[in-house]
Amino acid sequence: MTLPKMMTIGTLAAGYEAGTLTPLDVIEAVIGRIQSWPDPAVWISRFSDDELRAAAKALMAAGGPSPDKPLWGIPFAVKDNIDCAGLETTAACPAFAYRPAQDATVVARLRAAGAIPVGKTNLDQFATGLNGTRSPYGAPRSVFDADYISGGSSSGSAVAVGAGIVAFSLGTDTAGSGRVPASFNNLVGVKPSKGMFSTTGLVPACRSLDCISVFAATAGEADFVRRVAAGLDPADPFSRDLPDVVLPTEGLRVGVPVGAEREFFGDAANEAIYVAAIEAMKALGCSIVEIDFAPFREAANLLYSGPWVAERLAAVEAFHAAHADAMDPNVRKIVEGALGVTAVDAFRGLYALEGFRQKTAATWAMVDILLLPTTPLFPKVSDMLADPIGLNSKLGRYTNFVNLMDCAGIAVPAGFRPDGLPFGVTLIGPAFSDAALAVWGDRLHKAAATGYGLDTTADLSAMPAPEGPQVERIEVVVVGAHLSGMPLNPQLTGGGGVLVKRCRTASDYRLYALPGTVPPKPGLLHSPGFDGPGLEVEVWALPPAAFGRFVAAIPAPLGIGKVTLDDGSDVSGFLCEPHALEGAAEITALGGWRAYCAAK
Amino acid sequence: MTLPKMMTIGTLAAGYEAGTLTPLDVIEAVIGRIQSWPDPAVWISRFSDDELRAAAKALMAAGGPSPDKPLWGIPFAVKDNIDCAGLETTAACPAFAYRPAQDATVVARLRAAGAIPVGKTNLDQFATGLNGTRSPYGAPRSVFDADYISGGSSSGSAVAVGAGIVAFSLGTDTAGSGRVPASFNNLVGVKPSKGMFSTTGLVPACRSLDCISVFAATAGEADFVRRVAAGLDPADPFSRDLPDVVLPTEGLRVGVPVGAEREFFGDAANEAIYVAAIEAMKALGCSIVEIDFAPFREAANLLYSGPWVAERLAAVEAFHAAHADAMDPNVRKIVEGALGVTAVDAFRGLYALEGFRQKTAATWAMVDILLLPTTPLFPKVSDMLADPIGLNSKLGRYTNFVNLMDCAGIAVPAGFRPDGLPFGVTLIGPAFSDAALAVWGDRLHKAAATGYGLDTTADLSAMPAPEGPQVERIEVVVVGAHLSGMPLNPQLTGGGGVLVKRCRTASDYRLYALPGTVPPKPGLLHSPGFDGPGLEVEVWALPPAAFGRFVAAIPAPLGIGKVTLDDGSDVSGFLCEPHALEGAAEITALGGWRAYCAAK
Repeated sequence: MTLPKMMTIGTLAAGYEAGTLTPLDVIEAVIGRIQSWPDPAVWISRFSDDELRAAAKALMAAGGPSPDKPLWGIPFAVKDNIDCAGLETTAACPAFAYRPAQDATVVARLRAAGAIPVGKTNLDQFATGLNGTRSPYGAPRSVFDADYISGGSSSGSAVAVGAGIVAFSLGTDTAGSGRVPASFNNLVGVKPSKGMFSTTGLVPACRSLDCISVFAATAGEADFVRRVAAGLDPADPFSRDLPDVVLPTEGLRVGVPVGAEREFFGDAANEAIYVAAIEAMKALGCSIVEIDFAPFREAANLLYSGPWVAERLAAVEAFHAAHADAMDPNVRKIVEGALGVTAVDAFRGLYALEGFRQKTAATWAMVDILLLPTTPLFPKVSDMLADPIGLNSKLGRYTNFVNLMDCAGIAVPAGFRPDGLPFGVTLIGPAFSDAALAVWGDRLHKAAATGYGLDTTADLSAMPAPEGPQVERIEVVVVGAHLSGMPLNPQLTGGGGVLVKRCRTASDYRLYALPGTVPPKPGLLHSPGFDGPGLEVEVWALPPAAFGRFVAAIPAPLGIGKVTLDDGSDVSGFLCEPHALEGAAEITALGGWRAYCAAK
Repeated sequence: MTLPKMMTIGTLAAGYEAGTLTPLDVIEAVIGRIQSWPDPAVWISRFSDDELRAAAKALMAAGGPSPDKPLWGIPFAVKDNIDCAGLETTAACPAFAYRPAQDATVVARLRAAGAIPVGKTNLDQFATGLNGTRSPYGAPRSVFDADYISGGSSSGSAVAVGAGIVAFSLGTDTAGSGRVPASFNNLVGVKPSKGMFSTTGLVPACRSLDCISVFAATAGEADFVRRVAAGLDPADPFSRDLPDVVLPTEGLRVGVPVGAEREFFGDAANEAIYVAAIEAMKALGCSIVEIDFAPFREAANLLYSGPWVAERLAAVEAFHAAHADAMDPNVRKIVEGALGVTAVDAFRGLYALEGFRQKTAATWAMVDILLLPTTPLFPKVSDMLADPIGLNSKLGRYTNFVNLMDCAGIAVPAGFRPDGLPFGVTLIGPAFSDAALAVWGDRLHKAAATGYGLDTTADLSAMPAPEGPQVERIEVVVVGAHLSGMPLNPQLTGGGGVLVKRCRTASDYRLYALPGTVPPKPGLLHSPGFDGPGLEVEVWALPPAAFGRFVAAIPAPLGIGKVTLDDGSDVSGFLCEPHALEGAAEITALGGWRAYCAAK
């Protein structure tokens, strides 16, 4: 089969399933695309052509796609501050380079899932920057226009996906490095919650804030990779494994800065796309809430103007002491900003951050997520070089606070400017709302209909949506007034219930119309030995607490026991006390309550 | 009425309710006890006798006890690093003293609840110390022996309660200052979760760790005060308001250090009391789990040997720069340990702490709480003065980690040594498990039967238990294998269930022994019109999610509907499908499942 312009996970997996494609075919395409892509600054190192072919062959020899290898045969790129065994880690600083003995934990998880690492991508040195020009390996360019920056610091990783060379890539994101390049290359950038991805094997930028991130074509694919890569790592002090935070799937409350805080530094084209994204969220049924962005913005200032630069120094202190001359001058200047900063300053910075957290708590009580421009500007490389620190600071206006404030984020494409360049927005939610954010990011991306990467006409509507949060749910069989469209159905939907399926009970159930019930209700009776038609039921699933409240609210003579379905499974469902069935009309022959109501 | 030796909240409130006592009577007693207590070092300042009388009269003039004034007429003491309008705040450093314009938020909440502040108590200067000897206002002594330290830094606050001068007091607790003095004065010391009490109006020691704490006679009274004092304060960056964390009310898993980590520095008397406390917890039905205490102990070392001393310098930096000579020499030495500590050091300390947090996560997966000696030693004042830094460090062995690790704690009396001095233990749980900890702390205190403060023969069994966590609960009536002591009862206790009451069903219920059930179970049948004895049942209450899981786990033919009790109320409870009752033996006449099992 001919591979499309963009190498999505879905396309490759479908080809593998259909037998029309092999990992070796894909690796040959990857090799060809690496060679033909005109930008020389994307990769810092990569596996040789033969090593890549050998990896594909080894995977094929070990068996085909399988559920325990959800990324079987998917090629990906690794930002060169993340260890990948077999290749050097440089952090874009040749004098700092070392050859890691093993994969970073996240790379190891992806390899174990069948994904094939292709090579190491360029970055702003030590992941310090949002622009992509701070590297001795050159400045990667936006896949849309070589005059423009790719964004950084995960510059090469974004280009490798945006150009269709690999299906996804790993970036990192401390100040916005996993989001800004997504905006400039028409991609989705998932910035997971802090601690969700292990940072074992990552060269730190700010250890307390660093997140490994994912670039992919769609929210569904980026979130799919997130699920594979995520997991508790006891070796990583900052690793966390918390339950998914659920967000409303309808009627989301979306915070946007009040007008005075919407700063685009004069770029009206970007602003117009942001305003359109707000309108798109409205059209998706969201309510828009104008919020005070000032405490978020002020917290963001702590990242470079406060003591957190000391984390950057802590990360490279010995190297800096010995080889400061070998550092990029702008990166060096930033890191050296930490010299002379005291522990008292550090704690004062923590106090200030807690103050901003407290101030923003009132905002979070009013909104479920924030919708922000990913970045206000889209500079040319020449602009960036002319004002390397000032312009970088502007680029981080809407991203710098996110890790400080312990939020999750997903950057999605939002549209194209009149000059044809892409522009994106970011959805920001509480820690561990990642899965729920991806659902909304996907809806917005699909509404914007931007395609992905260079394939701006790709049909997003056909791309699978993210799975949504993984939450414990209890199934319950309903047979009467709780069925869809019936009067008590809101007791299920209001508690976060989802319809699992429509089916029938086993054949040994009888149904009765209970006299005098308001609203009218049936009673279900298990009659072992009876051979009836089975009764129409619906299976709903509720979070445990909602199920508990649902059960507690059921009045006599009804209750919840176990009901056997036509597939033989026993599921929680309605019982009726026998005294209430005495004298009640049996309606089993109608096959269900809905038919009885229709006939009545 | 004659006031007892110890001035408990319960005694005073009962007297007020009965009309046998007025706040003015109590204030006169307070004045008398202040004057007659021989230790001159307890108070730094206090309201004049006439001011106290006026406060009592004003309270009486505004009306009697009422539900919105739950501490009406209760006298309390305030540690002198907490603002109380009308009195100076000195932090035990005369040169630092200032006259606050308003109460600390916690003091204001207590005043609003009707409590009467009496005065400001002595402390280790700037709350730096666990011993009580670091104050120019003298060293308060244990109420049991004037040769011995009171413990600190909340020295005067503990003595004021232990001596029966006031009913409760506020301390503060950064490293153990709200717990160690409880041990040395036979009191309960509640160290609330970080952020639960506002710190607005508190002179900081380590701002990121400081907690205002409560001393009282019993866990029930200390926890009662905690509920009044707690609450979100948007003006306090560290303020938090999270839901109560529930702990099992039966079968608690209690972590204790493995033998090698049980360090008492040779004090066998203290060790024996600790071992007895472990045995008492076993007798209360707890399971004892030996844990690796090393990562807790190593985390504790960060407090004084790591960068957190910079918080102490941050708290008094301007004062220290101008008036270092006016500081206690030991306190000054500790604070000056922060000079030259860099922001890089501070972040490295944070990384180390996160590492210990990660290491202890495995322990917290195995235990619900930790039970530790409050402190290993009980030094004399002379010992303390001879080794002021080294001995203080030993005193904090079991307390220093608690705030760094974001835990809640309650120190309770555990017994008396052969020399008649008291000794205590501390129960430590996750943040916001305070209410649940108090329940267990109260059980252990009552098992130890130490009385409280100087009244070592006080009848604890008559003192009300703490209310327990405030959580939404759903009541469920159990009739068979889920009754207390029956095989399935752990399904209730394991989910955080609490026994509400034992009672009977209404008279129109029948009970059957279901054949072939494992474990054996009864079926309950509502038979309107039947007039039987009513059946023995228990009402349990579960959090909604636990109730939901409980219902989902019930196998056919049982289920949960509504059961009418002998008081006419309808409560969720067990139903049985009628087909299962066919052929089952009716056992209604026995009056309940327990009687049937006994007869069988």
